[in-house]
Amino acid sequence: MAPTRYSLTLEFDGTPFFGLQRQKDGPSVQQAVEEAILGVTGQEVTLHSAGRTDTGVHALAMRSHFDDESKLTPFRMGEAINAHLRPAPIAVTKCEAVPEDWHARFSCIGRRYLYRIINRRAPLTLEKDRAWLVSHECDAEAMHRAAQALVGHHDFTTFRSVHCQAASPVKTLDRLDVERVGDEIRVHVAARSFLHHQVRSMVGCLALVGMGRWNESRIAQVLEAKDRQELGLNAPSHGLYFVEAIYPEAP
Amino acid sequence: MAPTRYSLTLEFDGTPFFGLQRQKDGPSVQQAVEEAILGVTGQEVTLHSAGRTDTGVHALAMRSHFDDESKLTPFRMGEAINAHLRPAPIAVTKCEAVPEDWHARFSCIGRRYLYRIINRRAPLTLEKDRAWLVSHECDAEAMHRAAQALVGHHDFTTFRSVHCQAASPVKTLDRLDVERVGDEIRVHVAARSFLHHQVRSMVGCLALVGMGRWNESRIAQVLEAKDRQELGLNAPSHGLYFVEAIYPEAP
Repeated sequence: MAPTRYSLTLEFDGTPFFGLQRQKDGPSVQQAVEEAILGVTGQEVTLHSAGRTDTGVHALAMRSHFDDESKLTPFRMGEAINAHLRPAPIAVTKCEAVPEDWHARFSCIGRRYLYRIINRRAPLTLEKDRAWLVSHECDAEAMHRAAQALVGHHDFTTFRSVHCQAASPVKTLDRLDVERVGDEIRVHVAARSFLHHQVRSMVGCLALVGMGRWNESRIAQVLEAKDRQELGLNAPSHGLYFVEAIYPEAP
Repeated sequence: MAPTRYSLTLEFDGTPFFGLQRQKDGPSVQQAVEEAILGVTGQEVTLHSAGRTDTGVHALAMRSHFDDESKLTPFRMGEAINAHLRPAPIAVTKCEAVPEDWHARFSCIGRRYLYRIINRRAPLTLEKDRAWLVSHECDAEAMHRAAQALVGHHDFTTFRSVHCQAASPVKTLDRLDVERVGDEIRVHVAARSFLHHQVRSMVGCLALVGMGRWNESRIAQVLEAKDRQELGLNAPSHGLYFVEAIYPEAP
């Protein structure tokens, strides 16, 4: 009998993890979830996910999948994984049975991120490890205008980590919107896929524009340079949230 | 020369504290702030605050004051206190010089609280210790309707802690609004002053209405009973936020 493919929607606080993907040298979200599933079913499984995230990066709705023969209903499976995950700050917010050819990573046609900046003098308390504190006053409208130079089909070499494993630095950025909500600046980002560190690198440079250290036009110039040395600043990981993985509608 | 009276606006994560007010048996926000001021000025001061908060209760904008002769500008004083507060999750978000007859507690003519419920099955991750997880589906509209029975001038004995030190159980509740925002239920509360545990006691009973365990009309009945034994549930402290202290406009 064929195993069931379970899709998980995962929310997690990235603070205590060395990222989503299993690592040799420290705890990962993948390891925690795989061990919880082992606790539920007694079976070793491999978790596949829509995105990779770095140390400290959070997720509101990561999508993952694994195959299992235990025949638990998706509801029971999700509840049981949550029970075994405690007290790790990871939660299955949805568990569904999906077709066997559905793949959390390869079927994904769009990814959305949110980057949160808190723009004030005072240190963070309730939002510590949940947002990037930028003490210098930032012009969010200037950031938004400058950001539009990055939207579209470009070679993003400047905004790419030296550790990036992607075959090509060319990506299509669908959305890069900057909005101010009180003392918070939110950067909304969407693309089919991203290079390693691309969101954080773009946000870091936009913050330099916001603070007035860079002219708005410099964003287009450093993009055009296709040179990592032109990068101004890589924003810290703890302001970044994986928000949504998008899949084609079921037929 | 007269000392300067400084008003502080304080934000804090209440999780590690035994409340705002100084305690013999554990760390308090008051102690941490007074020690930070001592570090800045070398003077022992007493911090007076608009409200008291219990263990685990948070503040977005508590108001406090103290007197000091150091003659630092309010901006410098606020920055210096923040530097000395580290790494405690308390921040001075504003520091002002105020008239010597301005009193954070006695001049305050209104207090606002927010209570955050997250209404879902999955455990909390990013919002752990920041909201009350209610797993049973809640009807926020029913909660809002039932809440209106509490608005106005009433004897709130049912909703009063046995440890409450107020002279009278009679208070005027100005606002008790319940709204749903996605899977979050927000309870907005305002009054000139509150009894000890009043907000948490009201929210606990409203949650019973939301879950369908109490009829909407029972809120009015337990209020009328003026009997602490009639209390259904005291909501946990970690969902409660002190939001604002209101003062008369300066003349």
